[in-house]
Order: sequence, then C-alpha cells, then structure tokens
Amino acid sequence: MIIRENAKVKEIMVQMEGASNVTMKILIGSDENSKNIVMRQFKILPGGHTPKHTHDFEHVVKVVSGKGQIEDENGKLHELNAGNSVFVVPGELHQFSNPNDEPFEFLCIILNPAS
Amino acid sequence: MIIRENAKVKEIMVQMEGASNVTMKILIGSDENSKNIVMRQFKILPGGHTPKHTHDFEHVVKVVSGKGQIEDENGKLHELNAGNSVFVVPGELHQFSNPNDEPFEFLCIILNPAS
Repeated sequence: MIIRENAKVKEIMVQMEGASNVTMKILIGSDENSKNIVMRQFKILPGGHTPKHTHDFEHVVKVVSGKGQIEDENGKLHELNAGNSVFVVPGELHQFSNPNDEPFEFLCIILNPAS
Repeated sequence: MIIRENAKVKEIMVQMEGASNVTMKILIGSDENSKNIVMRQFKILPGGHTPKHTHDFEHVVKVVSGKGQIEDENGKLHELNAGNSVFVVPGELHQFSNPNDEPFEFLCIILNPAS
C-alpha cells in the first residue's frame, strides 16, 4: 500500500482556459500505480472558479473544506459545503466557483484516462 | 447532477465477518447512476475495525476525520489522520482499525462492481 501525506503532494496551478485561482493535487493516481481511479483535490481561492465546461466522463465529488458553488447546465447555482457530495453525469455542463472569503477544497474523483 | 447531503444518506452497519463497530454510507454509487465509481464513507467507532481481508480490486482512501490505523500485509500498523490518502493495491491484505477515543471516518472509493 502507498500512504501519502497530502500536504507533501505537489500542488499544480490549473492552467486550463476559463480556470481562475484554482490549484490541484493528485492525491492518488498513476504515480501510485492506480490504474482505474484518480483522486484529485482541488482548491479554489476566493473569487476563483473552474472552467464552465463539459466532458464525456463523470465526476464524483466530495467537499473537503470551505464553501463554494456549483452551477448546473440550467445556470442554477447550488451551494456546497463539507456535508455535500456531488455526482456530475457525463456530458453535463458544470462550473465550480468560490464567492466566499475562505478557500474551497473538494475531491474530484475520475476514472484514470490512461486506463 | 445529483447533490447529496451526507448527513441524510442511510447509514448501514457493516455485517461482514471480522468487522466490528463499522458503519458505511454510500455517498455516490448506483443510486446516483454512477456506473463506474462508488464512493463510500466508513465510520469506525473507538475499538472497532474492518475485517483483515484481501480482494482483487483496489481501494482509494482519503481520511475525513479522526485518527486510525491501517495494518499492511506484513502486520505493520500505520497511523492515519485527515492529512492522509492511501492506495491499497489489489490482492493486498489490509485492515483498518480505531484504537482511539473518537470516531475514525474515511472515504473508500472503488470501481462499481456492477460495471
């Protein structure tokens, strides 16, 4: 087994077009030889957001800390906190954002695209 | 998308042989139409443990709260807290336990066995 200290995992600035003030850590993924599942932890700083985008794979999400929002494909905003989990179906337009004063952190788990 | 309030998700006592004082919530799974990934949250009460067992699928684990231990296939105990993630490879003997005074909660993410 491989045990990681999340604080020591490299934090990457998300450079994707439409992303603002978002970082990502791959907590468990190909580096740990996980062939099927990749667990990423995102941090959105106050005022930041992920791209409003869609893709053909699903997201399994668990909020870790802070508060934020997710916008659905109808433009409706849903408040999220550490008590929430989210399933974003393949092909669904969505965007995470943080209109609050504290960082908003969540796990976003996907199938390993390399699998 | 489907947004869940984790507090409202049904908590199930884990009845598997060798399990003691362990409950599980399926935060995201087949009920949310997640075909590939199942995210479960386990809670081990003080003194409890999961079975010492092995299986042919991997575990992707993120500690949510409290402190606990994981025993590896060599019988070595590793302390875990909310700053840790774990990858348990397929076929590896392992056991989670809680020798502390507070509940130990962690996410354990697997491929959907129905997929």
